[in-house]
Amino acid sequence: MREIFQQELADIGDDLLALGQRVGHAVDTATRALQEADLQLAEEVIDDDRQIDLIEERIETACLNVLALQAPVATDLRLVVSAMRMSATLERMGDLASHVAYTARARFPHVASSGAMLDVLARMAQEAREITALLVKLMEERDLELVSRIHSKDDRLDMLLRQVFDLLLVEETPLTRQELVDAVLLSRFLERLGDHCVAAAKRVAYLVTGNLDASALVEDPTSTDD
Amino acid sequence: MREIFQQELADIGDDLLALGQRVGHAVDTATRALQEADLQLAEEVIDDDRQIDLIEERIETACLNVLALQAPVATDLRLVVSAMRMSATLERMGDLASHVAYTARARFPHVASSGAMLDVLARMAQEAREITALLVKLMEERDLELVSRIHSKDDRLDMLLRQVFDLLLVEETPLTRQELVDAVLLSRFLERLGDHCVAAAKRVAYLVTGNLDASALVEDPTSTDD
Repeated sequence: MREIFQQELADIGDDLLALGQRVGHAVDTATRALQEADLQLAEEVIDDDRQIDLIEERIETACLNVLALQAPVATDLRLVVSAMRMSATLERMGDLASHVAYTARARFPHVASSGAMLDVLARMAQEAREITALLVKLMEERDLELVSRIHSKDDRLDMLLRQVFDLLLVEETPLTRQELVDAVLLSRFLERLGDHCVAAAKRVAYLVTGNLDASALVEDPTSTDD
Repeated sequence: MREIFQQELADIGDDLLALGQRVGHAVDTATRALQEADLQLAEEVIDDDRQIDLIEERIETACLNVLALQAPVATDLRLVVSAMRMSATLERMGDLASHVAYTARARFPHVASSGAMLDVLARMAQEAREITALLVKLMEERDLELVSRIHSKDDRLDMLLRQVFDLLLVEETPLTRQELVDAVLLSRFLERLGDHCVAAAKRVAYLVTGNLDASALVEDPTSTDD
Protein backbone atom coordinates (compact mmCIF):
# COMPACT_ATOMS: atom_id res chain seq x y z
CA MET A 1 0.00 0.00 0.00
CA ARG A 2 2.75 2.40 1.01
CA GLU A 3 4.64 1.59 -2.19
CA ILE A 4 1.61 2.31 -4.36
CA PHE A 5 1.19 5.63 -2.57
CA GLN A 6 4.82 6.65 -3.21
CA GLN A 7 4.39 5.68 -6.84
CA GLU A 8 1.27 7.87 -7.09
CA LEU A 9 3.18 10.82 -5.66
CA ALA A 10 6.07 10.20 -8.07
CA ASP A 11 3.59 10.08 -10.97
CA ILE A 12 2.10 13.43 -9.91
CA GLY A 13 5.60 14.93 -9.77
CA ASP A 14 6.42 13.53 -13.21
CA ASP A 15 3.17 14.84 -14.69
CA LEU A 16 3.76 18.27 -13.20
CA LEU A 17 7.24 18.44 -14.70
CA ALA A 18 5.92 17.25 -18.05
CA LEU A 19 3.25 19.96 -17.87
CA GLY A 20 5.91 22.58 -17.09
CA GLN A 21 8.04 21.48 -20.03
CA ARG A 22 5.07 21.47 -22.38
CA VAL A 23 4.03 24.96 -21.27
CA GLY A 24 7.65 26.11 -21.65
CA HIS A 25 7.59 24.81 -25.23
CA ALA A 26 4.24 26.54 -25.87
CA VAL A 27 5.51 29.92 -24.66
CA ASP A 28 8.71 29.52 -26.69
CA THR A 29 6.81 28.58 -29.82
CA ALA A 30 4.05 31.19 -29.45
CA THR A 31 6.46 34.08 -28.94
CA ARG A 32 8.51 32.99 -31.95
CA ALA A 33 5.31 32.68 -33.99
CA LEU A 34 4.52 36.27 -32.98
CA GLN A 35 7.93 37.69 -33.82
CA GLU A 36 8.36 35.78 -37.08
CA ALA A 37 4.71 35.81 -38.24
CA ASP A 38 4.96 32.03 -38.52
CA LEU A 39 1.54 30.48 -39.09
CA GLN A 40 2.71 26.90 -38.61
CA LEU A 41 4.22 27.63 -35.20
CA ALA A 42 1.04 29.47 -34.14
CA GLU A 43 -1.14 26.51 -35.17
CA GLU A 44 1.14 24.15 -33.25
CA VAL A 45 0.60 26.08 -30.00
CA ILE A 46 -3.17 26.31 -30.50
CA ASP A 47 -3.43 22.58 -31.25
CA ASP A 48 -1.26 21.64 -28.27
CA ASP A 49 -3.26 23.62 -25.71
CA ARG A 50 -5.84 20.85 -25.37
CA GLN A 51 -3.05 18.49 -24.28
CA ILE A 52 -2.00 20.98 -21.62
CA ASP A 53 -5.58 21.12 -20.32
CA LEU A 54 -5.77 17.32 -20.23
CA ILE A 55 -2.53 16.97 -18.26
CA GLU A 56 -3.81 19.55 -15.79
CA GLU A 57 -7.07 17.62 -15.36
CA ARG A 58 -5.11 14.40 -14.85
CA ILE A 59 -2.96 16.02 -12.15
CA GLU A 60 -5.99 17.44 -10.35
CA THR A 61 -7.79 14.11 -10.39
CA ALA A 62 -4.68 12.27 -9.17
CA CYS A 63 -4.24 14.81 -6.35
CA LEU A 64 -7.86 14.43 -5.25
CA ASN A 65 -7.51 10.65 -5.27
CA VAL A 66 -4.37 10.78 -3.15
CA LEU A 67 -6.01 13.20 -0.70
CA ALA A 68 -9.11 11.02 -0.43
CA LEU A 69 -7.45 7.62 -0.23
CA GLN A 70 -4.03 8.21 1.33
CA ALA A 71 -4.55 11.22 3.63
CA PRO A 72 -0.97 12.43 3.11
CA VAL A 73 0.74 14.56 5.75
CA ALA A 74 3.87 16.74 6.01
CA THR A 75 6.05 16.70 2.87
CA ASP A 76 3.63 14.51 0.94
CA LEU A 77 0.71 16.83 1.63
CA ARG A 78 2.86 19.78 0.60
CA LEU A 79 3.62 18.05 -2.68
CA VAL A 80 -0.04 17.35 -3.42
CA VAL A 81 -1.30 20.85 -2.56
CA SER A 82 1.55 22.50 -4.46
CA ALA A 83 0.90 20.28 -7.46
CA MET A 84 -2.75 21.35 -7.52
CA ARG A 85 -1.91 25.04 -7.38
CA MET A 86 1.04 24.86 -9.78
CA SER A 87 -0.85 22.85 -12.38
CA ALA A 88 -3.61 25.51 -12.37
CA THR A 89 -0.98 28.24 -12.84
CA LEU A 90 0.76 26.33 -15.64
CA GLU A 91 -2.56 25.70 -17.37
CA ARG A 92 -3.23 29.46 -17.37
CA MET A 93 0.23 30.06 -18.82
CA GLY A 94 -0.72 27.67 -21.61
CA ASP A 95 -3.84 29.75 -22.23
CA LEU A 96 -1.73 32.91 -22.43
CA ALA A 97 0.62 31.25 -24.93
CA SER A 98 -2.48 30.34 -26.96
CA HIS A 99 -3.76 33.92 -26.87
CA VAL A 100 -0.40 35.09 -28.25
CA ALA A 101 -0.57 32.38 -30.93
CA TYR A 102 -4.14 33.33 -31.90
CA THR A 103 -3.01 36.92 -32.47
CA ALA A 104 -0.03 35.79 -34.55
CA ARG A 105 -2.36 33.60 -36.63
CA ALA A 106 -4.98 36.32 -37.10
CA ARG A 107 -2.39 38.81 -38.42
CA PHE A 108 -0.56 36.32 -40.70
CA PRO A 109 1.18 36.94 -43.12
CA HIS A 110 1.92 40.21 -41.32
CA VAL A 111 3.67 40.72 -38.00
CA ALA A 112 1.19 41.96 -35.35
CA SER A 113 2.96 45.28 -34.85
CA SER A 114 5.41 47.70 -36.42
CA GLY A 115 8.11 50.27 -35.72
CA ALA A 116 9.09 51.13 -32.16
CA MET A 117 6.14 49.19 -30.75
CA LEU A 118 7.31 46.00 -32.47
CA ASP A 119 10.75 46.48 -30.92
CA VAL A 120 9.35 46.67 -27.38
CA LEU A 121 6.92 43.79 -27.91
CA ALA A 122 9.77 41.65 -29.32
CA ARG A 123 11.79 42.38 -26.17
CA MET A 124 8.80 41.39 -24.02
CA ALA A 125 8.43 38.18 -26.05
CA GLN A 126 12.12 37.41 -25.45
CA GLU A 127 11.81 38.05 -21.70
CA ALA A 128 8.66 35.92 -21.50
CA ARG A 129 10.50 33.04 -23.20
CA GLU A 130 13.44 33.38 -20.84
CA ILE A 131 11.43 33.67 -17.61
CA THR A 132 9.40 30.58 -18.56
CA ALA A 133 12.59 28.66 -19.39
CA LEU A 134 13.95 29.65 -15.95
CA LEU A 135 10.78 28.35 -14.29
CA VAL A 136 11.06 25.00 -16.10
CA LYS A 137 14.74 24.79 -15.08
CA LEU A 138 13.73 25.55 -11.47
CA MET A 139 11.16 22.75 -11.61
CA GLU A 140 13.78 20.37 -13.02
CA GLU A 141 16.73 21.26 -10.78
CA ARG A 142 15.08 22.81 -7.70
CA ASP A 143 17.96 25.27 -7.47
CA LEU A 144 16.46 28.17 -5.49
CA GLU A 145 19.12 30.56 -6.84
CA LEU A 146 16.90 30.68 -9.92
CA VAL A 147 14.03 32.28 -7.98
CA SER A 148 15.72 35.67 -7.77
CA ARG A 149 16.52 35.56 -11.50
CA ILE A 150 12.83 34.91 -12.14
CA HIS A 151 11.95 37.96 -10.03
CA SER A 152 14.41 40.12 -12.01
CA LYS A 153 12.93 39.00 -15.31
CA ASP A 154 9.45 39.79 -14.00
CA ASP A 155 10.58 43.31 -13.04
CA ARG A 156 11.95 43.72 -16.55
CA LEU A 157 8.62 42.64 -18.07
CA ASP A 158 6.81 45.19 -15.89
CA MET A 159 9.23 47.89 -17.06
CA LEU A 160 8.73 46.96 -20.72
CA LEU A 161 4.95 46.99 -20.19
CA ARG A 162 5.23 50.61 -19.04
CA GLN A 163 7.22 51.37 -22.22
CA VAL A 164 4.43 49.87 -24.32
CA PHE A 165 1.87 52.08 -22.58
CA ASP A 166 4.07 55.16 -22.94
CA LEU A 167 4.22 54.53 -26.68
CA LEU A 168 0.50 53.77 -26.90
CA LEU A 169 -0.52 57.02 -25.22
CA VAL A 170 1.48 59.27 -27.57
CA GLU A 171 -1.05 60.16 -30.27
CA GLU A 172 1.85 60.58 -32.74
CA THR A 173 3.02 56.95 -32.48
CA PRO A 174 1.86 55.66 -35.87
CA LEU A 175 -0.36 52.64 -35.16
CA THR A 176 -3.54 51.36 -36.74
CA ARG A 177 -6.48 50.59 -34.45
CA GLN A 178 -5.74 46.88 -34.84
CA GLU A 179 -2.11 47.42 -33.87
CA LEU A 180 -3.21 49.46 -30.86
CA VAL A 181 -5.60 46.79 -29.60
CA ASP A 182 -3.04 44.03 -30.26
CA ALA A 183 -0.32 45.94 -28.41
CA VAL A 184 -2.50 46.39 -25.31
CA LEU A 185 -3.50 42.73 -25.21
CA LEU A 186 -0.15 41.18 -26.22
CA SER A 187 1.80 43.26 -23.70
CA ARG A 188 -0.63 42.24 -21.00
CA PHE A 189 -0.48 38.53 -21.93
CA LEU A 190 3.33 38.60 -21.88
CA GLU A 191 3.46 40.50 -18.60
CA ARG A 192 0.97 38.08 -17.02
CA LEU A 193 3.22 35.16 -18.05
CA GLY A 194 5.87 36.76 -15.85
CA ASP A 195 3.46 37.07 -12.90
CA HIS A 196 2.50 33.42 -13.20
CA CYS A 197 6.16 32.36 -13.34
CA VAL A 198 6.76 34.27 -10.08
CA ALA A 199 3.74 32.60 -8.45
CA ALA A 200 4.85 29.13 -9.62
CA ALA A 201 8.44 29.78 -8.50
CA LYS A 202 7.16 30.61 -5.00
CA ARG A 203 5.35 27.28 -4.97
CA VAL A 204 8.55 25.43 -5.90
CA ALA A 205 10.34 27.29 -3.09
CA TYR A 206 7.59 26.21 -0.70
CA LEU A 207 7.96 22.64 -1.85
CA VAL A 208 11.73 22.67 -1.33
CA THR A 209 11.92 24.61 1.93
CA GLY A 210 8.57 23.76 3.51
CA ASN A 211 8.41 27.39 4.55
CA LEU A 212 4.71 28.15 4.72
CA ASP A 213 5.21 31.81 3.90
CA ALA A 214 1.89 33.38 3.00
CA SER A 215 3.58 34.80 -0.09
CA ALA A 216 4.01 31.26 -1.35
CA LEU A 217 0.33 30.59 -1.06
CA VAL A 218 -1.30 33.41 -2.92
CA GLU A 219 -0.46 35.16 -6.10
CA ASP A 220 1.55 38.27 -5.46
CA PRO A 221 -1.06 40.84 -4.34
CA THR A 222 1.03 43.68 -5.78
CA SER A 223 0.95 42.19 -9.26
CA THR A 224 -1.56 43.37 -11.85
CA ASP A 225 -3.19 40.01 -11.49
CA ASP A 226 -6.46 39.06 -13.10
CA MET B 1 -11.93 16.02 18.35
CA ARG B 2 -14.70 15.37 15.86
CA GLU B 3 -16.59 18.42 17.09
CA ILE B 4 -13.57 20.68 16.65
CA PHE B 5 -13.17 19.35 13.11
CA GLN B 6 -16.79 20.10 12.22
CA GLN B 7 -16.35 23.59 13.67
CA GLU B 8 -13.24 24.11 11.51
CA LEU B 9 -15.17 23.10 8.39
CA ALA B 10 -18.04 25.41 9.34
CA ASP B 11 -15.56 28.26 9.84
CA ILE B 12 -14.07 27.66 6.38
CA GLY B 13 -17.57 27.72 4.87
CA ASP B 14 -18.38 30.96 6.72
CA ASP B 15 -15.12 32.57 5.63
CA LEU B 16 -15.72 31.57 2.02
CA LEU B 17 -19.20 33.07 2.05
CA ALA B 18 -17.88 36.25 3.69
CA LEU B 19 -15.21 36.41 0.98
CA GLY B 20 -17.85 36.01 -1.72
CA GLN B 21 -20.00 38.77 -0.23
CA ARG B 22 -17.03 41.11 0.10
CA VAL B 23 -15.99 40.46 -3.52
CA GLY B 24 -19.61 41.01 -4.60
CA HIS B 25 -19.54 44.38 -2.84
CA ALA B 26 -16.18 45.23 -4.45
CA VAL B 27 -17.46 44.49 -7.96
CA ASP B 28 -20.65 46.46 -7.31
CA THR B 29 -18.75 49.44 -5.94
CA ALA B 30 -15.99 49.41 -8.58
CA THR B 31 -18.39 49.30 -11.51
CA ARG B 32 -20.46 52.15 -10.03
CA ALA B 33 -17.24 54.13 -9.44
CA LEU B 34 -16.47 53.60 -13.11
CA GLN B 35 -19.87 54.63 -14.42
CA GLU B 36 -20.29 57.61 -12.09
CA ALA B 37 -16.64 58.74 -11.96
CA ASP B 38 -16.89 58.52 -8.18
CA LEU B 39 -13.47 58.88 -6.56
CA GLN B 40 -14.63 57.92 -3.09
CA LEU B 41 -16.15 54.63 -4.28
CA ALA B 42 -12.99 53.83 -6.22
CA GLU B 43 -10.80 54.45 -3.16
CA GLU B 44 -13.08 52.23 -1.10
CA VAL B 45 -12.55 49.27 -3.44
CA ILE B 46 -8.78 49.78 -3.60
CA ASP B 47 -8.51 50.02 0.21
CA ASP B 48 -10.67 46.95 0.73
CA ASP B 49 -8.69 44.67 -1.58
CA ARG B 50 -6.10 43.96 1.12
CA GLN B 51 -8.91 42.56 3.31
CA ILE B 52 -9.95 40.27 0.48
CA ASP B 53 -6.37 39.00 0.18
CA LEU B 54 -6.20 38.40 3.93
CA ILE B 55 -9.42 36.40 4.00
CA GLU B 56 -8.14 34.28 1.11
CA GLU B 57 -4.88 33.60 2.97
CA ARG B 58 -6.86 32.66 6.10
CA ILE B 59 -9.01 30.21 4.13
CA GLU B 60 -5.98 28.62 2.48
CA THR B 61 -4.17 28.21 5.79
CA ALA B 62 -7.29 26.75 7.44
CA CYS B 63 -7.73 24.29 4.56
CA LEU B 64 -4.11 23.16 4.77
CA ASN B 65 -4.47 22.65 8.52
CA VAL B 66 -7.61 20.59 8.10
CA LEU B 67 -5.98 18.47 5.38
CA ALA B 68 -2.87 17.90 7.50
CA LEU B 69 -4.54 17.26 10.85
CA GLN B 70 -7.94 15.78 10.03
CA ALA B 71 -7.45 13.92 6.74
CA PRO B 72 -11.03 14.61 5.62
CA VAL B 73 -12.73 12.29 3.14
CA ALA B 74 -15.85 12.34 0.96
CA THR B 75 -18.04 15.44 1.41
CA ASP B 76 -15.62 17.05 3.83
CA LEU B 77 -12.69 16.68 1.46
CA ARG B 78 -14.84 18.11 -1.32
CA LEU B 79 -15.59 21.13 0.83
CA VAL B 80 -11.94 21.75 1.62
CA VAL B 81 -10.68 21.37 -1.95
CA SER B 82 -13.52 23.49 -3.34
CA ALA B 83 -12.86 26.16 -0.73
CA MET B 84 -9.21 26.35 -1.78
CA ARG B 85 -10.05 26.71 -5.46
CA MET B 86 -12.99 29.06 -4.96
CA SER B 87 -11.10 31.36 -2.63
CA ALA B 88 -8.35 31.71 -5.25
CA THR B 89 -10.98 32.55 -7.89
CA LEU B 90 -12.71 35.07 -5.63
CA GLU B 91 -9.40 36.70 -4.77
CA ARG B 92 -8.71 37.20 -8.49
CA MET B 93 -12.18 38.73 -8.90
CA GLY B 94 -11.23 41.16 -6.14
CA ASP B 95 -8.10 42.06 -8.12
CA LEU B 96 -10.21 42.69 -11.22
CA ALA B 97 -12.56 44.95 -9.24
CA SER B 98 -9.47 46.82 -8.06
CA HIS B 99 -8.19 47.23 -11.61
CA VAL B 100 -11.54 48.76 -12.60
CA ALA B 101 -11.39 51.05 -9.55
CA TYR B 102 -7.81 52.14 -10.35
CA THR B 103 -8.93 53.18 -13.83
CA ALA B 104 -11.91 55.10 -12.43
CA ARG B 105 -9.59 56.86 -9.98
CA ALA B 106 -6.97 57.68 -12.62
CA ARG B 107 -9.54 59.35 -14.90
CA PHE B 108 -11.37 61.27 -12.14
CA PRO B 109 -13.12 63.74 -12.42
CA HIS B 110 -13.87 62.40 -15.90
CA VAL B 111 -15.60 59.17 -16.87
CA ALA B 112 -13.13 56.72 -18.44
CA SER B 113 -14.90 56.66 -21.80
CA SER B 114 -17.35 58.54 -23.98
CA GLY B 115 -20.04 58.21 -26.63
CA ALA B 116 -21.04 54.80 -27.95
CA MET B 117 -18.08 53.14 -26.22
CA LEU B 118 -19.23 54.41 -22.84
CA ASP B 119 -22.69 52.95 -23.51
CA VAL B 120 -21.29 49.47 -24.18
CA LEU B 121 -18.86 49.60 -21.25
CA ALA B 122 -21.70 50.70 -18.95
CA ARG B 123 -23.72 47.69 -20.10
CA MET B 124 -20.74 45.43 -19.42
CA ALA B 125 -20.38 46.99 -15.96
CA GLN B 126 -24.06 46.30 -15.28
CA GLU B 127 -23.76 42.67 -16.43
CA ALA B 128 -20.60 42.18 -14.34
CA ARG B 129 -22.44 43.48 -11.27
CA GLU B 130 -25.39 41.20 -11.93
CA ILE B 131 -23.38 38.03 -12.64
CA THR B 132 -21.35 38.55 -9.47
CA ALA B 133 -24.53 39.11 -7.45
CA LEU B 134 -25.90 35.84 -8.88
CA LEU B 135 -22.74 34.01 -7.82
CA VAL B 136 -23.01 35.36 -4.26
CA LYS B 137 -26.68 34.33 -4.20
CA LEU B 138 -25.68 30.86 -5.44
CA MET B 139 -23.11 30.60 -2.64
CA GLU B 140 -25.73 31.68 -0.09
CA GLU B 141 -28.66 29.59 -1.29
CA ARG B 142 -27.03 26.74 -3.24
CA ASP B 143 -29.91 26.85 -5.70
CA LEU B 144 -28.41 25.27 -8.83
CA GLU B 145 -31.06 26.93 -11.02
CA LEU B 146 -28.86 30.00 -10.73
CA VAL B 147 -25.98 28.29 -12.57
CA SER B 148 -27.66 28.55 -15.97
CA ARG B 149 -28.47 32.23 -15.35
CA ILE B 150 -24.78 32.77 -14.61
CA HIS B 151 -23.91 31.09 -17.91
CA SER B 152 -26.36 33.35 -19.79
CA LYS B 153 -24.87 36.47 -18.22
CA ASP B 154 -21.40 35.28 -19.18
CA ASP B 155 -22.52 34.80 -22.80
CA ARG B 156 -23.89 38.33 -22.72
CA LEU B 157 -20.57 39.70 -21.45
CA ASP B 158 -18.76 37.89 -24.28
CA MET B 159 -21.17 39.39 -26.79
CA LEU B 160 -20.68 42.89 -25.37
CA LEU B 161 -16.90 42.37 -25.47
CA ARG B 162 -17.18 41.73 -29.20
CA GLN B 163 -19.16 44.99 -29.54
CA VAL B 164 -16.38 46.86 -27.77
CA PHE B 165 -13.81 45.44 -30.18
CA ASP B 166 -16.01 46.20 -33.20
CA LEU B 167 -16.16 49.83 -32.05
CA LEU B 168 -12.45 49.94 -31.29
CA LEU B 169 -11.42 48.72 -34.73
CA VAL B 170 -13.41 51.33 -36.65
CA GLU B 171 -10.88 54.13 -37.16
CA GLU B 172 -13.77 56.63 -37.25
CA THR B 173 -14.96 55.90 -33.69
CA PRO B 174 -13.80 59.08 -31.96
CA LEU B 175 -11.59 57.99 -29.04
CA THR B 176 -8.40 59.38 -27.56
CA ARG B 177 -5.47 57.00 -27.11
CA GLN B 178 -6.21 56.89 -23.38
CA GLU B 179 -9.84 56.00 -24.05
CA LEU B 180 -8.74 53.29 -26.48
CA VAL B 181 -6.36 51.70 -24.01
CA ASP B 182 -8.90 51.97 -21.18
CA ALA B 183 -11.63 50.39 -23.32
CA VAL B 184 -9.44 47.38 -24.19
CA LEU B 185 -8.45 46.78 -20.57
CA LEU B 186 -11.80 47.57 -18.91
CA SER B 187 -13.75 45.36 -21.29
CA ARG B 188 -11.30 42.54 -20.66
CA PHE B 189 -11.48 42.95 -16.86
CA LEU B 190 -15.28 42.91 -16.94
CA GLU B 191 -15.40 39.92 -19.28
CA ARG B 192 -12.91 38.05 -17.07
CA LEU B 193 -15.16 38.67 -14.06
CA GLY B 194 -17.81 36.70 -15.93
CA ASP B 195 -15.40 33.82 -16.64
CA HIS B 196 -14.44 33.61 -12.97
CA CYS B 197 -18.12 33.61 -11.93
CA VAL B 198 -18.71 30.65 -14.25
CA ALA B 199 -15.69 28.81 -12.81
CA ALA B 200 -16.81 29.50 -9.23
CA ALA B 201 -20.39 28.48 -10.02
CA LYS B 202 -19.10 25.12 -11.31
CA ARG B 203 -17.29 24.65 -8.01
CA VAL B 204 -20.49 25.32 -6.07
CA ALA B 205 -22.29 22.79 -8.29
CA TYR B 206 -19.53 20.26 -7.55
CA LEU B 207 -19.91 20.94 -3.83
CA VAL B 208 -23.67 20.43 -3.96
CA THR B 209 -23.85 17.45 -6.31
CA GLY B 210 -20.50 15.79 -5.67
CA ASN B 211 -20.33 15.22 -9.39
CA LEU B 212 -16.62 15.15 -10.14
CA ASP B 213 -17.10 16.43 -13.65
CA ALA B 214 -13.78 17.53 -15.06
CA SER B 215 -15.47 20.76 -16.13
CA ALA B 216 -15.98 21.59 -12.46
CA LEU B 217 -12.30 21.24 -11.74
CA VAL B 218 -10.63 23.43 -14.29
CA GLU B 219 -11.48 26.81 -15.63
CA ASP B 220 -13.50 26.58 -18.79
CA PRO B 221 -10.90 25.82 -21.47
CA THR B 222 -13.00 27.61 -24.08
CA SER B 223 -12.90 30.87 -22.17
CA THR B 224 -10.37 33.56 -23.03
CA ASP B 225 -8.75 32.79 -19.75
CA ASP B 226 -5.48 34.25 -18.55
